Amino acid sequence: MDAGTDARFELRPIGVLRTPWATRSDCPRNIRLATGSAEAEIFPPYRPGLADLEGLSHVILLYWLHDAERDVLVVTPPGTDRPRGVFSTRAPVRPNPIGIAAVALHAVTPSGLRVGPLDCVSGTPLLDVKPYLPSVDAIADAVTGWHGRRG
Amino acid sequence: MDAGTDARFELRPIGVLRTPWATRSDCPRNIRLATGSAEAEIFPPYRPGLADLEGLSHVILLYWLHDAERDVLVVTPPGTDRPRGVFSTRAPVRPNPIGIAAVALHAVTPSGLRVGPLDCVSGTPLLDVKPYLPSVDAIADAVTGWHGRRG
Repeated sequence: MDAGTDARFELRPIGVLRTPWATRSDCPRNIRLATGSAEAEIFPPYRPGLADLEGLSHVILLYWLHDAERDVLVVTPPGTDRPRGVFSTRAPVRPNPIGIAAVALHAVTPSGLRVGPLDCVSGTPLLDVKPYLPSVDAIADAVTGWHGRRG
Repeated sequence: MDAGTDARFELRPIGVLRTPWATRSDCPRNIRLATGSAEAEIFPPYRPGLADLEGLSHVILLYWLHDAERDVLVVTPPGTDRPRGVFSTRAPVRPNPIGIAAVALHAVTPSGLRVGPLDCVSGTPLLDVKPYLPSVDAIADAVTGWHGRRG
């Protein structure tokens, strides 16, 4: 049976992201402009799930953009001149404000992961860590529609 | 203030995925083995967010693996011979069973999207659609750790 529009699913944070950006206004405009490194602190009950991450050069992080509005379907991204459907953008505002980022995995530590730059605010709840697999995740020749015109 | 382990966040499905796989046992073992095409039906209230997707060759879908166990932190993936930490795998079982897939966008229809093959069961709740942006999403030379040894 399909879940209808009124179904709800419950997320549980597995940890928290520590970044150099203390407030939203400190955050770089997108991840390409982010510098430094970040920590993905994993809460103790979930740390057994970190086994075998050594040897991966990159991971995909999923996190909850807890400050983002959820009832906005059309946005004008920074640096653009007209409104766009939110699903054609990576704006944090969206019905389910889940951020995803493919980042370099620098180290697995006792308390989590040290990773490459992230553009989200420090304290962002972490939802999941997945291995980055080029065979399914890397599509170098993807065409980016209106994004390509941003220069 | 950080969200602690007892914080909870609520997801709302924005639509439903229609795939050729009626039951979990019909599903291909992974997305590389999936064939055919799939439909991402978007519920009417969210359709305004689909504007401007035309022109994108690929999108990232996030969906809720509603049948997956959530209290498993170590799994033995099919085709492998020993248990692995769940965050080093793409297994559906995980604390927050969110699936992600980068798929070809074949068409934007009045009711949603026609996309390339997916390996999830038909009826899977859809959470989000994002544009695939090679500048941040494509890491062709990522090293895959133990995955690379599966041949």
